[in-house]
Amino acid sequence: MERTCLAVILAAGDSTRMKSSKSKVLHPVANRPMIAHVVDAVAKSDISSVALVVGRNADEVVNAASVDGVAIEAYLQKERLGTGHAVLAAREAIARGYDDIVVTYGDVPLQTDGPLKAARRHLAEGSDIVVIGFHTNRPTGYGRLLVKDGELIAIREEKDATDAERAVTWCNSGLMAINGRKALDLLSRIGNSNAKGEYYLTDLVEIARSLGGRVTAVDAPEVEMTGCNNRAELAVIERLWQERRRHELMISGVSMIAPETVFLSYDTVIGQDALIEPNVVFGPGVVIDGGAVIHAFSHIEGAHVSTGATVGPFARLRPGANLAEGSKVGNFCEVKNGEIGAGAKVNHLTYIGDAKIGAGANIGAGTITCNYDGVNKSETLIGANAFIGSNSSLVAPVSVGDNAYVASGSVITADVPADALAFGRARQEVKPGRATALRERALALKAARKTKS
Amino acid sequence: MERTCLAVILAAGDSTRMKSSKSKVLHPVANRPMIAHVVDAVAKSDISSVALVVGRNADEVVNAASVDGVAIEAYLQKERLGTGHAVLAAREAIARGYDDIVVTYGDVPLQTDGPLKAARRHLAEGSDIVVIGFHTNRPTGYGRLLVKDGELIAIREEKDATDAERAVTWCNSGLMAINGRKALDLLSRIGNSNAKGEYYLTDLVEIARSLGGRVTAVDAPEVEMTGCNNRAELAVIERLWQERRRHELMISGVSMIAPETVFLSYDTVIGQDALIEPNVVFGPGVVIDGGAVIHAFSHIEGAHVSTGATVGPFARLRPGANLAEGSKVGNFCEVKNGEIGAGAKVNHLTYIGDAKIGAGANIGAGTITCNYDGVNKSETLIGANAFIGSNSSLVAPVSVGDNAYVASGSVITADVPADALAFGRARQEVKPGRATALRERALALKAARKTKS
Amino acid sequence: MERTCLAVILAAGDSTRMKSSKSKVLHPVANRPMIAHVVDAVAKSDISSVALVVGRNADEVVNAASVDGVAIEAYLQKERLGTGHAVLAAREAIARGYDDIVVTYGDVPLQTDGPLKAARRHLAEGSDIVVIGFHTNRPTGYGRLLVKDGELIAIREEKDATDAERAVTWCNSGLMAINGRKALDLLSRIGNSNAKGEYYLTDLVEIARSLGGRVTAVDAPEVEMTGCNNRAELAVIERLWQERRRHELMISGVSMIAPETVFLSYDTVIGQDALIEPNVVFGPGVVIDGGAVIHAFSHIEGAHVSTGATVGPFARLRPGANLAEGSKVGNFCEVKNGEIGAGAKVNHLTYIGDAKIGAGANIGAGTITCNYDGVNKSETLIGANAFIGSNSSLVAPVSVGDNAYVASGSVITADVPADALAFGRARQEVKPGRATALRERALALKAARKTKS
Repeated sequence: MERTCLAVILAAGDSTRMKSSKSKVLHPVANRPMIAHVVDAVAKSDISSVALVVGRNADEVVNAASVDGVAIEAYLQKERLGTGHAVLAAREAIARGYDDIVVTYGDVPLQTDGPLKAARRHLAEGSDIVVIGFHTNRPTGYGRLLVKDGELIAIREEKDATDAERAVTWCNSGLMAINGRKALDLLSRIGNSNAKGEYYLTDLVEIARSLGGRVTAVDAPEVEMTGCNNRAELAVIERLWQERRRHELMISGVSMIAPETVFLSYDTVIGQDALIEPNVVFGPGVVIDGGAVIHAFSHIEGAHVSTGATVGPFARLRPGANLAEGSKVGNFCEVKNGEIGAGAKVNHLTYIGDAKIGAGANIGAGTITCNYDGVNKSETLIGANAFIGSNSSLVAPVSVGDNAYVASGSVITADVPADALAFGRARQEVKPGRATALRERALALKAARKTKS
Repeated sequence: MERTCLAVILAAGDSTRMKSSKSKVLHPVANRPMIAHVVDAVAKSDISSVALVVGRNADEVVNAASVDGVAIEAYLQKERLGTGHAVLAAREAIARGYDDIVVTYGDVPLQTDGPLKAARRHLAEGSDIVVIGFHTNRPTGYGRLLVKDGELIAIREEKDATDAERAVTWCNSGLMAINGRKALDLLSRIGNSNAKGEYYLTDLVEIARSLGGRVTAVDAPEVEMTGCNNRAELAVIERLWQERRRHELMISGVSMIAPETVFLSYDTVIGQDALIEPNVVFGPGVVIDGGAVIHAFSHIEGAHVSTGATVGPFARLRPGANLAEGSKVGNFCEVKNGEIGAGAKVNHLTYIGDAKIGAGANIGAGTITCNYDGVNKSETLIGANAFIGSNSSLVAPVSVGDNAYVASGSVITADVPADALAFGRARQEVKPGRATALRERALALKAARKTKS
Repeated sequence: MERTCLAVILAAGDSTRMKSSKSKVLHPVANRPMIAHVVDAVAKSDISSVALVVGRNADEVVNAASVDGVAIEAYLQKERLGTGHAVLAAREAIARGYDDIVVTYGDVPLQTDGPLKAARRHLAEGSDIVVIGFHTNRPTGYGRLLVKDGELIAIREEKDATDAERAVTWCNSGLMAINGRKALDLLSRIGNSNAKGEYYLTDLVEIARSLGGRVTAVDAPEVEMTGCNNRAELAVIERLWQERRRHELMISGVSMIAPETVFLSYDTVIGQDALIEPNVVFGPGVVIDGGAVIHAFSHIEGAHVSTGATVGPFARLRPGANLAEGSKVGNFCEVKNGEIGAGAKVNHLTYIGDAKIGAGANIGAGTITCNYDGVNKSETLIGANAFIGSNSSLVAPVSVGDNAYVASGSVITADVPADALAFGRARQEVKPGRATALRERALALKAARKTKS
């Protein structure tokens, strides 16, 4: 679109019903603050200027709202005198003169670019005010949109509605677009002669019509207009977001056995023919390539899993985990900042941290990379086709060469050359018959303890 | 309320459809036997005397029904001759003379104090019989409540109902309140001249009216009146219980990303601004303080998690786990009867049992407290700011002093003084080129095995 | 039934909307390829001859379709010219002369024997064509079944339907039964004079009636007729399958606290009074005996769990795991090809692979059976009542005798006789005050690193 546009995003609410120590719009949906979802929808609507009307936690909110390519100015709303008053907190930006003004809300995070774009098209075609509505089976409590000959003639509040009007199921979402050249004049005409003494944005419908302006409405999917007032509603929004994104991924060729148990982040990328088993949680920053398999009970964030690699069940990949093709990270394993080479196997009860593991290496059950000495983190390097025996401890910084072999139960503190065998364990001793003696002593101790107590 | 009241709880059903080796009312909802939920609702209705009519597993049922402040007398129902007959099993208690009698059921565990209190108010206002009803969209099979001029004129069974009566959606729950001074007389008038030859409690409506008494009905939420006849219905009841409690917690300021994956116990306490990620199971006896974070895939019972502490993912806290402020128990860690000091970290693959860990201590990956010798359990004490190297074994009873340092891979069998460094591992040896030889030998063995088979 | 019958299963679709590298009918439902579910329903309908019409991945599809007692012939459909054409790909089999022909689909995996048997009864009673229909609240898009005087007079496509016909909620599933003696004649009369130029099986209704034949319809449950066209629909089918099977198990006496979080395989067997906690995944080949307890977050495949045994939470049983009565496999434990004797305990952070553990043995936390040397897998034998100390490594092949005792942190490389005590760990050394020095050195290193960067 060639027209200039300012989005005014209202994010100053007190959000007391959230019962939270932080502003409502900072609460995350799909691991991203609500407000960032809204700015993202604005950006996708070809709007690059945002006036963010903030209250509580202003700095954090502005920070959380930062999305690439969008210029954000923050305006503090000092008093809560209604939506009309809130929009005018951004008077300075509005006065700058845009073709279009859109007003949206920081607590409506499921909105996409569709409704705002549709509203802007109506502005381009001559509307002065465009209200965004939605159809619902449960209209009770919402203002109804009354339309005649293609124009919106009123938003009728529930309490003022006739029975016929109450039967209308097209409702006001609160989102609105305003002719940018007339916006300041129209907004300044909103009064507060009403029961609560507040300035209502919805009054613009009547004001614009009384001045001979054209007022219309566009439709948005009900889901997109879902607002958030408490944490139960936040959970509903999260569910709706997840359902939408899971469905997109399945349609694109990702298999999910039980999609309702897969939790995605806002930026999760999964390729075609990947299989995601039940109960998988994706934190931010994950890329799963096509054909990878994520078994049940896996927890993955900041990680990359290549084609043919398998993860889990019961695996945790943390930031910096990078699994090459055909590699495997199995049950009760954790990888943090670790490269797992092609075809390498980390199958059981292992901690890999700050390490690089060569192609084809086999890491035995119970292996620990000891990457932390209480102060510094150090690196472990394991060569291609190396074999690390079970229950070994690799005390970093340390390296094990290609094809080298570490015996089970070893503590490795010095580098192991390629092709070498390394031991670091005590020789076994056996005391015949002594188990019986041990047990008898323990039983005697138990009896003694009981006598005392 | 000043009026005295006896609750008769019917819990003698055969429950054959449960296909269970134990009585239906012993099956748990939210980790508490069904019958205890019912007694709890009775207690909250200001009723302190309970006549429990039992059949199968009588002792276990009485035991499970024990709730603080409620006096329970058990009456054995020897034959199953209908609800009217069952109530009269408690004849002795009823004959004692209460102002109010309420009759409820051991297999209706979602009931709260609301319906019983409402019914008792009707008794206080002069009703002789008060039936508790519920509205439903699926009335088929239930007796319909027929009301005229504020009185209940009949409970019409499905098979006897006219089309107009069948259209009534207010149904009989089975719960009832009876004028305690008339109860014995009314109950003894119930006959069994019907198809099944049983004594039906619902006949009281007609009996009381025929004697000129006032019969009314009160309404209960449908959910609260849900009964349990098989294990599929038990699962539905569990779901309804969980949904109700999760919603309460969210409204009170607890964040749940996916509430449908969080399983609470009857006594779970969670403070404001705590975050519960997906897939968390709470056993009995858990207190989560405000601001704590429970990551995905955590299993917690009998534990206390303080403000700012984090648990999981993939953590298990067992009874006696006590996490101080800002402490952390991470993936594949188990804590049983263990104090984790403020800011201490138990991050990976660790078993802490019968131990006290000082503030700021760091427990390396793979650490095991060896608390059991096959007979006795012993304690491990770790001082403040101590560092336990990865893959260490701490053989209890043993203590590690403040600021002490245990080298990775050590087996610690004797106390380590404060500030000391302790080793308990073998020195590493390296055999150059020997990995190749080892591999060749193993391949030869493999070939030999194949030849044999 | 005495009548001979051929089932023609159409499984040649391109399934492009699956966005998959393999044929749609190979995608699994409950861990079994869709096509095998269909063949199984056919077999249960007393049909032992199957003509499988295949396209893509023909060999894999035939292989996946193998079900005991069913003879399968595959016919390649080279062109996609409609369902009528697809059935005639099996002309050779049809020409052989059966009493009954039934036509079903490889992507309708929830079908049971009910509908096909009902259709065959109609054939036996004289129908030439029997269409299988289903009732639905969302008929849009389906052909409506128009019935008069007990005969099906037409399948009316949506676009050709009158308003009255569109209001019909009985729809065509696509499944059909055909008089086997007339089938070849009827099928060869189907033409392709329609918009798409395809041969439609549904034309048989009109053809048979025009020849004076009797055409009828039978009803199937809507769920059973659910088809699969993309992976979102596949997930819906999986959910429906799971709901059906969970319900059956609960009704039979299995307790599930949260059935929607329990994922069963097609062959999972669970006995009465077993308890399955939330979040349990069953792979193929599992038998859980009555009275066993599977705690939350367990992953079980190819395993047998006996009465009174308990698994989890956070346990993984892999193929060949066999838990005897009263044994226990606890958190963060993996068992693969392992016998766990009666009353034996494998409680924490353990890997048991290729091992036999005697009755009453206690395996300490962090124990690893080192069953793999990089080439061969070897066996570990642990005797009855043996005690394996925590964090031990058992390097296979190795055996530990009855009542023997392995000290914590040992590496065991040689057999331990019965009643013996085995050590394999270094003696502990303590360096007083050295922890302080270590920490100072580490802090100096940290400072140096910072200066560099």
